[in-house]
Parts: sequence; structure tokens; C-alpha cells
Amino acid sequence: MIDLCTLGTGGTMPLHTRALASLYVRNGARALLVDCGEGTQVWVGKLGWGFQRIGAILISHYHADHCSGLPGFLLALTKAGRTEPVDIWGPRGLVRVMSGLRVICPNLSYETVLHEVPDEGSCFEAAGLRVRAFPLDHGMPCLGFRFDLDRPRAFLPDRARELGIPMCLWQRLQRGESAEDWTPDAVLGPERRGISFVYATDTRPVPAIAEAGRDTDLMILEGMYGAEDDLPKALKNSHMLYRESAALAREAGTGRLLLTHFSTSMEEPEEHLAAACAVFPRTGCARDGMTMTLRYDGVTEQTTPGWTET
Amino acid sequence: MIDLCTLGTGGTMPLHTRALASLYVRNGARALLVDCGEGTQVWVGKLGWGFQRIGAILISHYHADHCSGLPGFLLALTKAGRTEPVDIWGPRGLVRVMSGLRVICPNLSYETVLHEVPDEGSCFEAAGLRVRAFPLDHGMPCLGFRFDLDRPRAFLPDRARELGIPMCLWQRLQRGESAEDWTPDAVLGPERRGISFVYATDTRPVPAIAEAGRDTDLMILEGMYGAEDDLPKALKNSHMLYRESAALAREAGTGRLLLTHFSTSMEEPEEHLAAACAVFPRTGCARDGMTMTLRYDGVTEQTTPGWTET
Repeated sequence: MIDLCTLGTGGTMPLHTRALASLYVRNGARALLVDCGEGTQVWVGKLGWGFQRIGAILISHYHADHCSGLPGFLLALTKAGRTEPVDIWGPRGLVRVMSGLRVICPNLSYETVLHEVPDEGSCFEAAGLRVRAFPLDHGMPCLGFRFDLDRPRAFLPDRARELGIPMCLWQRLQRGESAEDWTPDAVLGPERRGISFVYATDTRPVPAIAEAGRDTDLMILEGMYGAEDDLPKALKNSHMLYRESAALAREAGTGRLLLTHFSTSMEEPEEHLAAACAVFPRTGCARDGMTMTLRYDGVTEQTTPGWTET
Repeated sequence: MIDLCTLGTGGTMPLHTRALASLYVRNGARALLVDCGEGTQVWVGKLGWGFQRIGAILISHYHADHCSGLPGFLLALTKAGRTEPVDIWGPRGLVRVMSGLRVICPNLSYETVLHEVPDEGSCFEAAGLRVRAFPLDHGMPCLGFRFDLDRPRAFLPDRARELGIPMCLWQRLQRGESAEDWTPDAVLGPERRGISFVYATDTRPVPAIAEAGRDTDLMILEGMYGAEDDLPKALKNSHMLYRESAALAREAGTGRLLLTHFSTSMEEPEEHLAAACAVFPRTGCARDGMTMTLRYDGVTEQTTPGWTET
């Protein structure tokens, strides 16, 4: 099970009606954050899922709306008492950006470990999830992310008893290790589908996004512009129309598409939703503070009561 | 006339119920901002007094809650179409801090002119006001500010007519220049009191604050801690209790004291107001979005309707 919260859903500038796009990903006791524009710490506080468990921060790129909240957020982790290291991933330039921003938050209670993702992308582990960072097309180094939570094969106790395997060996076999004469295959069921989702904003459509979205439960993609008339702006600013994100979701065959990172020019992002649904029907618009739980058996959505109203 | 807005009133961390302390100062068509923590641009937008007229930013010190909003704010000025230079004043270290923060906002539509105020303070002009920056006691270079708007001496047209001064010379005399045989003193009334106020947060009490506050209409001072029990925290973190700010206001003999920069530990800053009023009765607690107009004939307060509720 993975819990997600779209802390903010805005692009370019924070508004009092819409915070900057950021995603809180909770995997049990561990969590990570994708992007951290100014104000992100406020909405993490309001969400109530906690600061201290956040051990990884993934930054898509270095436009201010995606990273200007880092100094305050890193200080908030200190205030929350974190002492374990925090891993920060981002495209080329991370060390330079962090050196700049750390000028106003030099003293933290924990170490930050910086990982510059090469331009072609990379795979790593964060908050117990397998993460694949892949390059987007935004006129500067910019990353999308695919997250996978693997589901362990079921342990078959009846089978283990039939084979006469002593119970003291069960745990090792369950973990996938061999034990004495037995191999895990003897007592584990078939491979099972895990949970997977993609988060990609700030890009023109590129094949890598659809490819990353294959077999996922959910894709969270940018909905910078809803109206067809905004195509010239989308081209100029390296962003996507709703229908372009929807086409990527359709191509990927994902379970569901959630749009986020809305232009400040759209007061009501849902007004344009039909344009996306015409291409990929299972599309919705994210809202600030919307929470979702991804389970092994599908997607459940729930919204945090009162969040967007206060 | 000067319009003020306490955009935020919080110290240390922004909350969803309280933005970081920042002051918008409007002098007709010109304006300046004191401090710019993360989120300040949101509340400038909500206030509706405009971005473009803000030609000066004064930073008290480089703790993140006072300057982390600069990258986003500078970009917002670009988005608002500003092309004239923006002056930024701050204590020693400004060039280093701005070099760091500009990493995520390298391209602006205007020039930023950086002014490092020496440790002993300095005088300058911003938004048509005389400003005096003076040192505070916060364990690092930190500035308080006194603002003065001078009131021109009245021009006496009856006197000018009596003296037979040609009308074509009146404007020069009114501006305080001599014209032909006449000096301004011949046609100008007595000196008049202007408007003045002080803004100082993040400090232990120092005599310079009371001195700066002499003859002012208003002092806006920190109210980091209300309860007497918090004195050890105030000493440790170089902040003030309500009663300490009130004592400075009393010593200065200012017209009125407004407390701001409240600790996140105080849910309701007004709960402790009595402790300040016992020392200096004309004390109030600022609120996010509170606006005030300072006139030559006294202080008028008005609050922006609905601001703190949304």
C-alpha cells in the first residue's frame, strides 16, 4: 500500500488558492517528497503525515517553483528532530543549486546526501520504493519518475509442512533465501503484480513518459494548459495540453491519469477535463491536499476533508 | 500618507494559519517590502496593492524565514513586467546570499542593485521615504529600520501676493529654492511633523530600538513570546517577550505599538496582550493581512476583510 498526497497542484507561481505542485509519497513508516516549491512545508504540516519520516527528496528540475521551498523544508526537518541522513536526487546541477540554497540554511541536524542523476536517467531506491528517473523535454535537465513497490510472492505454509521443512527455516525461505536443501521456489507462490505509478510534470510529450507508464496503476502528469488555444504557449514554454498528457496515458495503458501543475491562468482546472477524457476517459484533476491510497488490488481515492476550503 | 500591510506575522516557520512576517509599505505610487520569507509573494498577490511598484526590498537578516521567498518574489516582479531596477538592502553578507539564491532565479527582467548595510547601520532612501537601518542583537548581523516621510512646509499664497512675488516663481519657492530676490522662508509656513515608524524583529532589547522609535507614530516590534515563562527561550534564541517590546515602546514614547513575528508555539497571540498593555497600553497584535494607513494627523487602522479567514 502506498499513500499519495498532491500537496499542491499549481505551476509557475503559488496562489492563495493553489499551492505549488508537490507530491508526498508515504510507504508505511518511510516517505519521500517529489518537488519542493516555496510553501511546501506548510502543506506537509497541514497534511499531518509527518516530516520526520521523509528521508528522500526528488527534484524534477531547478525552476524556482519546484525547489524554492527546500531551505525552509530542510529546516523544518531539523525542527522535527530528524537525525538520519536525507537523500536528495535531482538532475545535473544539484550540487550547485544546493550550495546556493544552503547559504540560508547552513545548520541542519542531519546530513544531506546529494545524488546528481545523469542526463540519461538512473535507477535508485527511495523510501523502500524502486525509482527510475527518466529525462523529460523542458529545455533544461528535467526528470520524470516511475515508482515501483514490489509485492513479495506469497509464502505457502501448507506446502512447507508437506515438504517437512522445519519452521525455523520458514522465514529465510520467505525472504527468498535458500535454507539447507530447500530453495524458495518450493514454498513461494507465483510472482505477483506490485504497485507502480509515474510522476512527470514540466515537459513536452516524449515517448519516455508513455514507456515509463506501461503497466502502472496511475500516472500523475502535468495539466499545464486545458484549452486547445494554449498550444502555442505549451510549445513555447515546453509544457503539455491536457489532451497531450491523456494521449501519453492512453499509449501507456495506465490504470488512471491524474492531472496536476495547472497554469495560474486556469481558475477552475476541471472546466477543461472533457478534453482529456475524450482521449483517455479515466482522467481526473488533482486538487491541493487530495490523498490517494494505491493498494495491490487497485486504486482508492479519498480527499482530505476541509483541506482546500481553509 | 503611508499604507502598511503586515502580510504575515509568523516567526521561524510558516503555518497554514499564519504566514511569515513581512511588511508591505506603500507610499503613493512607490512601495517597498521589509523581509520576504517563503510565501510572501502569495500574500502580496492577495493584498492587491501590486507587485510592480515595489522598487526596494529590505532584508533584516539571513535566517530563512526572512529571505527564503526572495527567488519566487523576484520572479513574480518579472512576471508583473517590472523593468526598472530593484534595490535590495540587507546586512553584511547580502552579496553572498543573493548569489546563492539567484541560482534558481538567474533571469529577471530588471537589474537588482545590492546594498550591504555596514554593521553600524546606515541611512538611505527607499520608496520616497528616508530610511535609517540600525543594528539589532540577534547573534548575527541583523537590522531594524526607521522610516520617515517628511511633510513639506505649507506654501502661503496670501503672503506671496502681499510680497508681490510673480506667480511664475511660486513653484520654485514652494520646492524650497530661492528665486530672484526671494527666499523660501518668506512664503513657507513653519516646519511640520511628518510620518514615521519603526520595524524591528529578531532581537533582544537594545537601546537603539527605543532611540529609533523616538517621536514616531508607530513601532512594529517582535512579539515572539508572550508568556513570562518563555524568558529563557527569548534569551537563548535572541528574541523578545511582549513586555520587553512594550518597554521599548514606552521608552521611545511612540504613538502606538504593534506586535508581530509570533512564535509558532502561540496559537492565539492576543491571549498574552495584557502583559504588553500593562507596560505600554497602546499595544495591539498584528494579524496576517492587517492594513493600516498612517496620516499626518495620526494613525488609522483598518483590517482587510476576509483576509485571515481564507
